[in-house]
Amino acid sequence: MESKLAQLKAILAEIADLNYASALLGWDQQTYMPPGGVMARSHQLATLNRLAHVRMASDEVGKLLDALEPYASQLDHDSDDARLIKVAQRQYNKRTKVPGEWVAKFAQTTSAAHSVWAEARAKNDFALFRPSLEKIMDLRRQYASFFEPYDHVYDPLLDDFEPGLKTAEVKAIFDALRPQQVALLQAISERPQIDDSFLFQPYDEKKQWDFGVEVITKFGYNWKNGRQDTTAHPFTTNFGIQDVRITTRVLPNNVASALFSTMHECGHAFYEMGVKLDLERTPLAGGASFAIHESQSRMWENLVGRSFPFWEYFYPRLQEYFPAQLGNVDLDRFYRAINKVEPSLIRVEADEATYNMHVMLRLELEIALMEGSLAVKDLPEAWNARMQDYLGLVPPDDSRGVLQDVHWSSGYIGYFSTYALGNLVSLQLWECIQKDIPDLTSQIRNGEFSALLGWLIEKVHQHGVKFEPQELVKRITGSTIDSAPYVKYLNQKYGEIYGL
Amino acid sequence: MESKLAQLKAILAEIADLNYASALLGWDQQTYMPPGGVMARSHQLATLNRLAHVRMASDEVGKLLDALEPYASQLDHDSDDARLIKVAQRQYNKRTKVPGEWVAKFAQTTSAAHSVWAEARAKNDFALFRPSLEKIMDLRRQYASFFEPYDHVYDPLLDDFEPGLKTAEVKAIFDALRPQQVALLQAISERPQIDDSFLFQPYDEKKQWDFGVEVITKFGYNWKNGRQDTTAHPFTTNFGIQDVRITTRVLPNNVASALFSTMHECGHAFYEMGVKLDLERTPLAGGASFAIHESQSRMWENLVGRSFPFWEYFYPRLQEYFPAQLGNVDLDRFYRAINKVEPSLIRVEADEATYNMHVMLRLELEIALMEGSLAVKDLPEAWNARMQDYLGLVPPDDSRGVLQDVHWSSGYIGYFSTYALGNLVSLQLWECIQKDIPDLTSQIRNGEFSALLGWLIEKVHQHGVKFEPQELVKRITGSTIDSAPYVKYLNQKYGEIYGL
Repeated sequence: MESKLAQLKAILAEIADLNYASALLGWDQQTYMPPGGVMARSHQLATLNRLAHVRMASDEVGKLLDALEPYASQLDHDSDDARLIKVAQRQYNKRTKVPGEWVAKFAQTTSAAHSVWAEARAKNDFALFRPSLEKIMDLRRQYASFFEPYDHVYDPLLDDFEPGLKTAEVKAIFDALRPQQVALLQAISERPQIDDSFLFQPYDEKKQWDFGVEVITKFGYNWKNGRQDTTAHPFTTNFGIQDVRITTRVLPNNVASALFSTMHECGHAFYEMGVKLDLERTPLAGGASFAIHESQSRMWENLVGRSFPFWEYFYPRLQEYFPAQLGNVDLDRFYRAINKVEPSLIRVEADEATYNMHVMLRLELEIALMEGSLAVKDLPEAWNARMQDYLGLVPPDDSRGVLQDVHWSSGYIGYFSTYALGNLVSLQLWECIQKDIPDLTSQIRNGEFSALLGWLIEKVHQHGVKFEPQELVKRITGSTIDSAPYVKYLNQKYGEIYGL
Repeated sequence: MESKLAQLKAILAEIADLNYASALLGWDQQTYMPPGGVMARSHQLATLNRLAHVRMASDEVGKLLDALEPYASQLDHDSDDARLIKVAQRQYNKRTKVPGEWVAKFAQTTSAAHSVWAEARAKNDFALFRPSLEKIMDLRRQYASFFEPYDHVYDPLLDDFEPGLKTAEVKAIFDALRPQQVALLQAISERPQIDDSFLFQPYDEKKQWDFGVEVITKFGYNWKNGRQDTTAHPFTTNFGIQDVRITTRVLPNNVASALFSTMHECGHAFYEMGVKLDLERTPLAGGASFAIHESQSRMWENLVGRSFPFWEYFYPRLQEYFPAQLGNVDLDRFYRAINKVEPSLIRVEADEATYNMHVMLRLELEIALMEGSLAVKDLPEAWNARMQDYLGLVPPDDSRGVLQDVHWSSGYIGYFSTYALGNLVSLQLWECIQKDIPDLTSQIRNGEFSALLGWLIEKVHQHGVKFEPQELVKRITGSTIDSAPYVKYLNQKYGEIYGL
């Protein structure tokens, strides 16, 4: 049995190598590839992805997994090997239950849909995109059917991002959260607005870059195992546990954008860097789910990076970088500015207090589309109605409404909720951290982050993919995903800032 | 038969993708990879290389090639398809004649030998490296045996770099060349030496970089299909015909090093960029051989870059970049300085007139080692004796003698001669170019390189790997590789410079 496990591990290591190589090709495409390389690169990526898929979906893997099942059941349930076999089985099932024809058709459809969506958004013409989205939804319903029986048609899609999580659970979580957030936003809207205009003036790009580097270096980002580059859209990627790279984008007239994005990506990078090295080249290297990953990035970006103690330490430094722009702005004014709450049309520009609303809106629409209770043709109307309910705004056009995000055109249905779930989990963890590190606030005030990072590595990062998201959150916090800590945090933080 | 050919092409395209991905992983390792990435990267490279090897050596490829052989013989001998099948057959034979055990043992031996060599060079201790080199030579003789019958035991090694070229041919070429070069060097040594000290003073690195970029942009380097980065050792690599990248290294106290290296790598890049796009993702994309590749890099570096007309155009620009260093140095003095001839111990620092001597020395020793007429233990003595004969110098220690190059520790036997052959071919081509473009000199004097590059693309680059090196040279020049044009060039150029 040991030898069968070794065989399985050798195949999984090969697949990991192919996936890492793909990731590097993708990173290069976003960072340094000259424009002429695009055609050859798409062939290379297709080949590597196909080889990894074929290997994972092979009879050889299926037979090894069948043979190892009884062995795994005798192992300690929490052991690396038991979890490895379980995760490999999950991946094998996903690969083999979905017919190759579907995969090809889906790839073709979404590839075509992407440019249609881009054109529709540019022309503010939802009707143009509608047939593409209808095809995608049909394919996605078909996808769900490959995983029958299920509790809910949306479950198989959610499972691709949040293993084991059910639609009913997410709905219950968001049903508790929604009215609380709506009430908070209503209260804020009745208070005088904060002036953050000084954040938007010319800020030297090199200095912005350097300050961001200084901050994450202080966080503990290990430059021997990573680097930062510039891309159009910031992201984190990795090619092993000891090569985890982040990217950022510096805007010349916005001091906040690159900085918070750098902290955000650093949070993602910490997760990948913190996985136990024994798990390298196995499917257990990585994050438990998209939500858990997002809990890490949002923690460093918001719970640390938008906190008052953080800026007690770093604001004098930022003022040294930008004396002309910030010399006359005191800490309190700066802190309020970076925490300004303002309902807006665009998700990616949303602040901490409104962000979840954008996500819940999308989740509800996705579920309704999958259930068939909402038709694609009625989507813009449904979108606008919810925007009015949740944020008190109606998009003046579909480009700034239902057409704003790329996700649906890429076939990503089931993704959005992970953003909001990550926010919730970040607070559940944060409450535990505050108990385990009672002087956390004063540590942050002194620019000390090693205890915090150490806690995250021990409790979250080192385990990689071993535990499903609900299981992991419960192991650490004693509860599954729950919105209460987040609501409490929002009310307290914005209560102070807006004097509620 | 068409369908079998399509099947073969699909497999070859997959192999090309794997090889390109490997090349990108290698490029990244030399340019941007953080140090922590090294272990994971070596696994990824090993996996990609193994997959490419297994695919190429597969029964499926063997059967397709067998089936296609009669078909190929009916095709036009010079057609892409006929040549594709021929080159694929050659690669298949190389892959399948060598047993996997040998490949594993060789990889293991050279991997270990590399660090032993580095230590031996640092400690100036040939005895330390001797057992490793003995093992490598044994393995290399065994390698040759897989290709029996052969005319000479060195032939199979040479063939890996120069398809179809025989040891007897190289020997004959070098036998004609050697006395001519020795005589020239002897004559130069009796003349007053040139002062080139002004080349070695502080030169701003950014300006050096910019000047190099200006030069190769003028040459016609297509930045949409390439880029330049900094590495410890300059090289050219590519991931398709439209993504061909070069690297350079800028020395703060040497204005010549980065510049000539940039021109050299640009010459290599032109070759890869000039291959007919139809050959993309086939084994025909690339250069005919190492020597033909080197003929391109040496042409741009030396025949263009170290020529008087080139500097008539570019020297005023260089003086604008560096007025303090070069404002008082006239063109003639500068031209003589960059063409200074001085026998030296180290190959990679050798000038145009002495370089081939270093190479011929290594070739003769390699042949003797392979024949068994020279034992590894006697190698340092043989090295030093030849250095005395050819260059009038004896290395004061083995670190600056027999231990200086990395090649043997990596198992590269058969490589060195390609450097000198490239020099010879560059002049054979140059003579043709001068006939076909009668005003070439005045074009270069006016910074015009498009006719030259166009000629090279048409005659050399577009064909890729289609023709073996001797065949290609003969098609273009009417003669196989021949040293006479090169000797004539050296005598004329250095006759003028040194007043012989």
